[in-house]
Amino acid sequence: MQLGLVGLGKMGANMRTRVQEAGHQVVGYDPRPEVSDVPSLADMVRGLEAPRVVWVMVPSGDPTRGTVKQLAELLEPGDLVIDGGNSKYTDDLPNAQLLGDKGIGFIDCGVSGGVWGLRNGYGLMAGGSDDDVARAMPIFDALRPPGERADGFVHAGPVGAGHYAKMVHNGVEYGLMHAYGEGYELLCAEPLITDVEGTLRAWTTGTVVRSWLLELLVRALQEDPGFSEISDYTTDSGEGRWTVEEAIRHSVPANVISAALFARFASRQDQGSPALKAVSALRNQFGGHAVTDTTGRSVGETGTPAAD
Amino acid sequence: MQLGLVGLGKMGANMRTRVQEAGHQVVGYDPRPEVSDVPSLADMVRGLEAPRVVWVMVPSGDPTRGTVKQLAELLEPGDLVIDGGNSKYTDDLPNAQLLGDKGIGFIDCGVSGGVWGLRNGYGLMAGGSDDDVARAMPIFDALRPPGERADGFVHAGPVGAGHYAKMVHNGVEYGLMHAYGEGYELLCAEPLITDVEGTLRAWTTGTVVRSWLLELLVRALQEDPGFSEISDYTTDSGEGRWTVEEAIRHSVPANVISAALFARFASRQDQGSPALKAVSALRNQFGGHAVTDTTGRSVGETGTPAAD
Amino acid sequence: MQLGLVGLGKMGANMRTRVQEAGHQVVGYDPRPEVSDVPSLADMVRGLEAPRVVWVMVPSGDPTRGTVKQLAELLEPGDLVIDGGNSKYTDDLPNAQLLGDKGIGFIDCGVSGGVWGLRNGYGLMAGGSDDDVARAMPIFDALRPPGERADGFVHAGPVGAGHYAKMVHNGVEYGLMHAYGEGYELLCAEPLITDVEGTLRAWTTGTVVRSWLLELLVRALQEDPGFSEISDYTTDSGEGRWTVEEAIRHSVPANVISAALFARFASRQDQGSPALKAVSALRNQFGGHAVTDTTGRSVGETGTPAAD
Amino acid sequence: MQLGLVGLGKMGANMRTRVQEAGHQVVGYDPRPEVSDVPSLADMVRGLEAPRVVWVMVPSGDPTRGTVKQLAELLEPGDLVIDGGNSKYTDDLPNAQLLGDKGIGFIDCGVSGGVWGLRNGYGLMAGGSDDDVARAMPIFDALRPPGERADGFVHAGPVGAGHYAKMVHNGVEYGLMHAYGEGYELLCAEPLITDVEGTLRAWTTGTVVRSWLLELLVRALQEDPGFSEISDYTTDSGEGRWTVEEAIRHSVPANVISAALFARFASRQDQGSPALKAVSALRNQFGGHAVTDTTGRSVGETGTPAAD
Repeated sequence: MQLGLVGLGKMGANMRTRVQEAGHQVVGYDPRPEVSDVPSLADMVRGLEAPRVVWVMVPSGDPTRGTVKQLAELLEPGDLVIDGGNSKYTDDLPNAQLLGDKGIGFIDCGVSGGVWGLRNGYGLMAGGSDDDVARAMPIFDALRPPGERADGFVHAGPVGAGHYAKMVHNGVEYGLMHAYGEGYELLCAEPLITDVEGTLRAWTTGTVVRSWLLELLVRALQEDPGFSEISDYTTDSGEGRWTVEEAIRHSVPANVISAALFARFASRQDQGSPALKAVSALRNQFGGHAVTDTTGRSVGETGTPAAD
Repeated sequence: MQLGLVGLGKMGANMRTRVQEAGHQVVGYDPRPEVSDVPSLADMVRGLEAPRVVWVMVPSGDPTRGTVKQLAELLEPGDLVIDGGNSKYTDDLPNAQLLGDKGIGFIDCGVSGGVWGLRNGYGLMAGGSDDDVARAMPIFDALRPPGERADGFVHAGPVGAGHYAKMVHNGVEYGLMHAYGEGYELLCAEPLITDVEGTLRAWTTGTVVRSWLLELLVRALQEDPGFSEISDYTTDSGEGRWTVEEAIRHSVPANVISAALFARFASRQDQGSPALKAVSALRNQFGGHAVTDTTGRSVGETGTPAAD
Repeated sequence: MQLGLVGLGKMGANMRTRVQEAGHQVVGYDPRPEVSDVPSLADMVRGLEAPRVVWVMVPSGDPTRGTVKQLAELLEPGDLVIDGGNSKYTDDLPNAQLLGDKGIGFIDCGVSGGVWGLRNGYGLMAGGSDDDVARAMPIFDALRPPGERADGFVHAGPVGAGHYAKMVHNGVEYGLMHAYGEGYELLCAEPLITDVEGTLRAWTTGTVVRSWLLELLVRALQEDPGFSEISDYTTDSGEGRWTVEEAIRHSVPANVISAALFARFASRQDQGSPALKAVSALRNQFGGHAVTDTTGRSVGETGTPAAD
Repeated sequence: MQLGLVGLGKMGANMRTRVQEAGHQVVGYDPRPEVSDVPSLADMVRGLEAPRVVWVMVPSGDPTRGTVKQLAELLEPGDLVIDGGNSKYTDDLPNAQLLGDKGIGFIDCGVSGGVWGLRNGYGLMAGGSDDDVARAMPIFDALRPPGERADGFVHAGPVGAGHYAKMVHNGVEYGLMHAYGEGYELLCAEPLITDVEGTLRAWTTGTVVRSWLLELLVRALQEDPGFSEISDYTTDSGEGRWTVEEAIRHSVPANVISAALFARFASRQDQGSPALKAVSALRNQFGGHAVTDTTGRSVGETGTPAAD
């Protein structure tokens, strides 16, 4: 079948390749002429036979909303738009309604797998109507990993469910990465462990904690032993924040995911933590720091009777 | 080669099978005559040609320490004992010294993989001298998964390092399981998600969060949809506690692992949480709970001006 | 001066008393005729000389928004409305604009102190223009505790700042209460401590942790030793949720406040924690639970080699 | 009565003053001749009439244990030693036994109040026998704040209970300080709040969160607005660590106290957080960072479809 694909960044370009390799025809549009198949979004639409399926793979928020608005003008009743980006799930219903008013279908589809999806296939989480999902199934089958369809693809629910599932996926990912991070840090801190990288590598097979993320961690350590080139400054994509907000909305205790999120916040405090400055200031207020013990030697704060 | 194996519980029996299938001869001892190959520990020792290798696979703490003491009496200089149980790493040096005084070698070896290790092989983390590890290597090779040795086996450092690595492994495992648990709970709480099990299953392939634990979670949900048969009462093996204690000793922030540990503690509070009773009592002290709004309807605590 | 007061629940009635005792005239309205000074909101407005000051003390959300809408119709240019309830700060600007369009001023004023405020005075946090705050100052002075004005009253910023400050106050309160709760629980758990209530009472004077909340905790324990009558089921007013949401919006690590919030969520899970059910189910999947040690006694899960 | 006082650091010197002001005679010993009343510990003992009471106020650990050992040699049956330092409670029983073998009594007494105790009195938590506590009561009464004895003093239980209570006190203190710290940080982050110091000061009276620590926080902010002179590097006295370790031992969920402790650990990671470096490295492994949106502008990682 044919697929219109908007956004040929790293993810979009890889997905185009994978869909083409499955035997489908892709008309890709990107504002950068050097990577685009057509000069304009309108040309992309004109290059597809109705009923069309158009996959939007652009940044979430305004770019995606803007693209959907343009498509609502350009497409025809019976066409179908799939938002494969990391949109917040609350964007999906408005987008679906905007398109639905023109008779155009909408699917939100969370996509996981990163740059590895080109070769391994992408994990897909779709939200939308049964009919729309059935129409897009050949594309989903091209993108998802080979093997059983239910491993790597889910029709998670109505419009919004796909991005919701992807959001939770990313929240879980925060927790998993930080759990490995804490384990890595503890192994590094313990002198008994003379081979940290080897220990993590051993964990990749046979153990209970084996996972793809762990394999990537070993790969990263092999490329840069001790992470000497890596900053601990960590950004966040927004999905971890949304996950904790949803946990709050649903009264779900999310101690692990929020701890992972807050650790990222802390990593960005270039001027130090105001909270800890307050703690330091408090200790200065009530503490008496210099004491001398009975042997006459000067004594640090540990064991200082005055430090509460 | 020959292996003496003390402890033929679920793990020990499976390991015996796997070692035998690799072509080695196992003499197994267990206090339960119906499963033991020999009537006594002394008979096990007599049944092995020197220099002997004896694998101890009994519960940690007193049972393991007791077995090591018995072996120190029964074995000869040049023999080797491997503790494959979940001993605390601080037990290893005393055990090694007790045996070393008799000229007997010692390796601590963390074993991961659970009941699945029989078929998949076990992830192994060994601590000890190079010579001792080299001698035991044929047994490690029999137990670990097929493929590259470094995937599934590590000589992590001197005596103690194997159990230390296993302890951290289990701490990480706490974090991973709880991250999935929080994601599962949030998916269950959101009405948009009409196929929770399918969503988790889709995550098992292609996605960033794919792992063996996730596959087990899907398997468990398929066996018992909604976990209707499962209590949230969760015990702990002690290794999570040790991991957090070690994090404290090494000044490693372990927010994720400790959150997972504390959640297990909370699940066991049959009489309710004393901390939350104190919070409730405090709110009663300063709160004025019943207020009426301007429409005359009775008002719950949300929005009560008096409830700080 | 005169004050119109809408809402004569527990808080509103106490505040009326306190304002009257300071020599002001209060016209109170409540939909319950038995406690109301006037039969209707319109009568309350008619009973006040312009320019009027009306304090709204009703539940947050729709009740407050509805009351503000009614007052926008009934009041005149130059009048002033103060929202003293626990409104979310994001409600304040719309309310201020609705009133401002009619020439009516608006102040949001967070009020803390609970039922004790009648005697002790209330801690007040106001948001609004300098002029509006100056006009209402006699009322604020009547409500706040005696002594220095800056202890117990702040003009925290423009419209919204008062409720924002109150929201953060309540978030901090969550953290404080839970810190005491954890300390209380640990004292109860330790057999060495034979006088838990006495220990907490001793802390109320001289120590670093002394506070009003601690005094209330001792009072509560004296009324109900062991909290035998108290459930650990703990609701939340919404302000803790908002605080954590704001922390997320501002990238502020809020580990302590969120931990206190999540503990309340957990206390309400009557069917058990789905996350912990998932953890239990996972452990069943990979664990081999029954093992026997070398002494033949049956062994629980602690120390079970098979339990990762 | 007479009191021997070992250790005339900031705390000890203040306590000498307070005990003297209550009419007692103090013979103080300190290894620094310029502050000591007597040239040696033996001279201090000789300067007291039997039965003696000796208060030890030196750093915990070896200095305290060493002082107790010396006193065991110098004192006589019927004398009494009080350890007022921040010893770990597990040191108390060995110290008590060492002294008890010579017929000398022992009390462990947690002392809180910092440098303010000189004027306000100290909060005291004592562990020991009824007889020993009764003998030392005049000294406790001199040190504790005026007013009701039960406010500021508790006989918490047998030997060990005093330091245990003090340890929990300090753990609670960690949680309280960090709760205020988080609130302070959030107030600073929100542009609506134009008077952070004023807001905190307003909280000191009338509100639910009022406390002595809050008063100190306001004082600190007034001395150093914005904490411009304060580092967020925060040490810890060891008591927070012990509290969390005890929580683990007693299966008490201590999410709040441990979060406060771990935040201090994080503040000391001069080379950055290894855990977050691992997280960063992982994101590099699977992420595709540079994408372009349909408007041609370059896009950061937020909203990048490729960033899981």
